[in-house]
Amino acid sequence: MDSLSVEKILEDNIPEQLLGKVKRVIYGRDLQSIQLPTLDKNLQCEIKGYKMGGARAEQLRDPRIVRVGLIQNTIVLPTSEPIADQRKAIHDKVGKYIEHAAKCGANIVCMQELWTMPMGFCTREKYPWAEFAEDAINGPTTSLVSKLARNHGIVVVSSILERDSTNSDILWNTTVVIDANGSVLGKQRKNHIPRNGDFNESTYYMEGNLGHPVFKTKFAKIGVVTCYGRHHPLNWLMYGINGAEIVFNPSAITSESFETLWQIEARCAAISNSYYTCAINRVGTEVYPQPFTSGDAKPPHKDLGEFFGSSYVTAPDGTRTPGLGRCSDGILIAEIDLNLCRQIRDLWNFPMTRRLDLYAHKLTEASNPDFQPQIIDK
Amino acid sequence: MDSLSVEKILEDNIPEQLLGKVKRVIYGRDLQSIQLPTLDKNLQCEIKGYKMGGARAEQLRDPRIVRVGLIQNTIVLPTSEPIADQRKAIHDKVGKYIEHAAKCGANIVCMQELWTMPMGFCTREKYPWAEFAEDAINGPTTSLVSKLARNHGIVVVSSILERDSTNSDILWNTTVVIDANGSVLGKQRKNHIPRNGDFNESTYYMEGNLGHPVFKTKFAKIGVVTCYGRHHPLNWLMYGINGAEIVFNPSAITSESFETLWQIEARCAAISNSYYTCAINRVGTEVYPQPFTSGDAKPPHKDLGEFFGSSYVTAPDGTRTPGLGRCSDGILIAEIDLNLCRQIRDLWNFPMTRRLDLYAHKLTEASNPDFQPQIIDK
Repeated sequence: MDSLSVEKILEDNIPEQLLGKVKRVIYGRDLQSIQLPTLDKNLQCEIKGYKMGGARAEQLRDPRIVRVGLIQNTIVLPTSEPIADQRKAIHDKVGKYIEHAAKCGANIVCMQELWTMPMGFCTREKYPWAEFAEDAINGPTTSLVSKLARNHGIVVVSSILERDSTNSDILWNTTVVIDANGSVLGKQRKNHIPRNGDFNESTYYMEGNLGHPVFKTKFAKIGVVTCYGRHHPLNWLMYGINGAEIVFNPSAITSESFETLWQIEARCAAISNSYYTCAINRVGTEVYPQPFTSGDAKPPHKDLGEFFGSSYVTAPDGTRTPGLGRCSDGILIAEIDLNLCRQIRDLWNFPMTRRLDLYAHKLTEASNPDFQPQIIDK
Repeated sequence: MDSLSVEKILEDNIPEQLLGKVKRVIYGRDLQSIQLPTLDKNLQCEIKGYKMGGARAEQLRDPRIVRVGLIQNTIVLPTSEPIADQRKAIHDKVGKYIEHAAKCGANIVCMQELWTMPMGFCTREKYPWAEFAEDAINGPTTSLVSKLARNHGIVVVSSILERDSTNSDILWNTTVVIDANGSVLGKQRKNHIPRNGDFNESTYYMEGNLGHPVFKTKFAKIGVVTCYGRHHPLNWLMYGINGAEIVFNPSAITSESFETLWQIEARCAAISNSYYTCAINRVGTEVYPQPFTSGDAKPPHKDLGEFFGSSYVTAPDGTRTPGLGRCSDGILIAEIDLNLCRQIRDLWNFPMTRRLDLYAHKLTEASNPDFQPQIIDK
């Protein structure tokens, strides 16, 4: 189990005549696998692909078929190695994955949250972690992915630690969107910052100040909900309102309780907003140089637990792909038809029935510090 | 499968050493079953109970243990029988279930949506369905459940078709909340009305005009999200903002695609809002007297498909109970500690980090017909 996905266990154990129906309830419509080219076998990387289907042919619009590629990866070198070496090793490995995703026909590729570095924020040490930060437009990571985007004609969604050297050297958790010609289309900053458990990010960066931009890339209109922002339905909603067809959720999470949540939230967001969601989580156990405590009265230790991968894609009708594995690097390709978004909106009518004006009014009242909740108490 | 729940299939087929881990990922923490008294064996009714656990002991608050009881039921007589007879037959049967739930220690009992009648709205015929409507305070159903509430000292959450005879005889989809002394604490009207598929309710009643009241009952602060309102995260959010500890979701849904959604939305709402949710769906296939079409270009038919039951409870940490069965009447008892709501809020900090003022502002902008979405397009 520790390396097997739940989907694999179901497939290996549930009798044929029941498996289809169990999968329908748990995962939705049955999906067709895509045959994909294999990767260098000295790279330990799972490769899976699915056609998500579900869209009907329309008379006035052609199908708008897009392949998304999700990449989950471990770090490469020990966290005590020189920063430049650590980053270069990840660049080299994940760069190959991005190229392979392009070879698999991916049009838009997204990596996990802060894919170029370890998630050392649990230590609450400023260094060396803050030194991984780089300029969003001209830094080494954006230079690398811009080149890959241009060479392969793909859109890349790249989550990095940003150093804003023109504004008091502030750090941000930023995702850069590079269009298929290699140019930076724009950036998004993580809107909701965790303040729980070992996720001490709030001592490194603040809540994002760039709103909920939807990037009109060559292939689709996309948004980014970064990691913990997944817990906030309003965050997802604003991307839907702004017209997103796909929302990526680059993440970095561990722990058993969050694994239970992992399968629910990005999937519910796809349903509520009638768009595709792509949830990507890192893998592996990272060991940091110095022991640290976790605010749970337990002894100091040197790791944050196991990042459990399990990246997956959900369609607007709630159907999801199987997840990538829990322990190793992986590339997940999903072929989707963007037309399904509007078709599901027509069919289920969630946007039409959502009473936005009512809630605009209610939230305005509720955000007043003197707000009196509507309680019936006889 | 058609009668078996997915949980049962997993338990029967997955080897012991993997089952615990599969269930942890799919359902959350392991739950302890409760031994419950059996019911008259001439009633075909499944009875299941679980202690949901998960709360820690506090120094300044005692545990606040409550048992909720969820009831799912088929109708009893053919839909062509006299209305008074149909209703009386359901009252008699479900009345016994309510009494049995009380005997199982339930403090708060909730039935499915419009539990006293068939869901004949798919026919778009006004009669006989409109004649099932009754006064929310003095009608026969509220009289029955008030008596049961008083006799057993339980809170009852009762979803009925309301006739508002003081306001132009309008119909509403209304849930009446009866406190443990038998008095009507108040009522709530369904906030979001479906306009999809065979769910033609919008020709019978409008969107609710009573806001998102939270009822401070003897045992807990509770809210009601009726059926289709489950698809709207803002609806769930307002009950959280108004202080609900448990939100009931009486429902009546069929069809394969909605069965995939069923396990996701109420569960995600419990997670997002750090409260308990109780999702209750009716069971059985109801045959209506006259054939009707379904807006899907298929031939006329006389039923809406199978209501698939599968009622379940989710805790604020995302852990859920197994579901009741898909086909037969059932009573699900869940023992919960209300203290877990605030503990999870403290632990995960979703309310603190939700940036309500930002979204109040954004939704106000977005509900303006001239709204310009935030799109980045170079």
